[in-house]
Amino acid sequence: EVEEHRIPLILDLQLHREDRGGHQSYSPLLYTEELAEFEKLLDQVKISEGALKTDGFGENPFYHCLVAEIPPESREPQGSTVVGYGLYYFTYSTWTGRNVYLEDIYVMPKYRGQGIGSKIIKKVAEVALEKGCSQFRLAVLDWNESAMDFYKARGAKDLTVAEGWRFFRFDNEAMRELVRM
Amino acid sequence: EVEEHRIPLILDLQLHREDRGGHQSYSPLLYTEELAEFEKLLDQVKISEGALKTDGFGENPFYHCLVAEIPPESREPQGSTVVGYGLYYFTYSTWTGRNVYLEDIYVMPKYRGQGIGSKIIKKVAEVALEKGCSQFRLAVLDWNESAMDFYKARGAKDLTVAEGWRFFRFDNEAMRELVRM
Repeated sequence: EVEEHRIPLILDLQLHREDRGGHQSYSPLLYTEELAEFEKLLDQVKISEGALKTDGFGENPFYHCLVAEIPPESREPQGSTVVGYGLYYFTYSTWTGRNVYLEDIYVMPKYRGQGIGSKIIKKVAEVALEKGCSQFRLAVLDWNESAMDFYKARGAKDLTVAEGWRFFRFDNEAMRELVRM
Repeated sequence: EVEEHRIPLILDLQLHREDRGGHQSYSPLLYTEELAEFEKLLDQVKISEGALKTDGFGENPFYHCLVAEIPPESREPQGSTVVGYGLYYFTYSTWTGRNVYLEDIYVMPKYRGQGIGSKIIKKVAEVALEKGCSQFRLAVLDWNESAMDFYKARGAKDLTVAEGWRFFRFDNEAMRELVRM
């Protein structure tokens, strides 16, 4: 049956959540925590299932979520339904206009090496082009060589190396300090 | 009159465009090009005034823009009205929820050193906290030491150094290749 795993469906979670088994099996939080553990940053997960629902499934959602689903006919008895996900949103560049940003991409370890990650990023690129985006951005941890190689092999450019861009972040406490200045 | 420059108004461009002199003096493109020139990346500006208008001023704008405006009573005869801007949008982290991302911040050279940049980032932090954001993110070029010092002095963390995050980007052509894969 492994061969069948090569054709998971890449679905829009916002569109397919209700008609494909309800909440439980599609909890973004589950996958979020697996990804964070892989990235060795699990202590940074501070969100609730309720907040993820409110922000992703309202009138103007803050994010969009793709899930890689194994079709029922190919599923093993104890196998997972959703084996990966990609979470993106739209951003903007005053130089080039609309962009898409892939915040998370994750494939469960036992389903890797089957092209699921490629299918997710291909779908993100399709959405981006449909929406008139000129760029598809993402961030990668520098110790994750295989991820960096994966994106480079597909035409992405490392802008931290090429142009010197660095990520900065104010956390909640730093923002509160800023406001008091 | 220099002292007066220290109290520019930080205005929401989407709210104040029409009632403060119309289109000409508030063209985001003008400032966009000045910023790009400063960043030595002017060749990357490929946007039209029309696209900036459509994307920023519709029902669900892709971005929000703050402008630093010199109050009429403090303006020099040939002085500028808008002397800086900050452009931001909302992003999302599945670990911490809503975030704000400051895509651009710019203050015209002759108006620097008067705290205008600080006022802009303070306003962004205020908006972020009002909207329930847990992070305020931005990117800085590594040769721009004064900008990096500026953000660090105000509590921002360099995540490229601290955690190893790198920026990756697929441009339009790379996205077209991805879709064909």
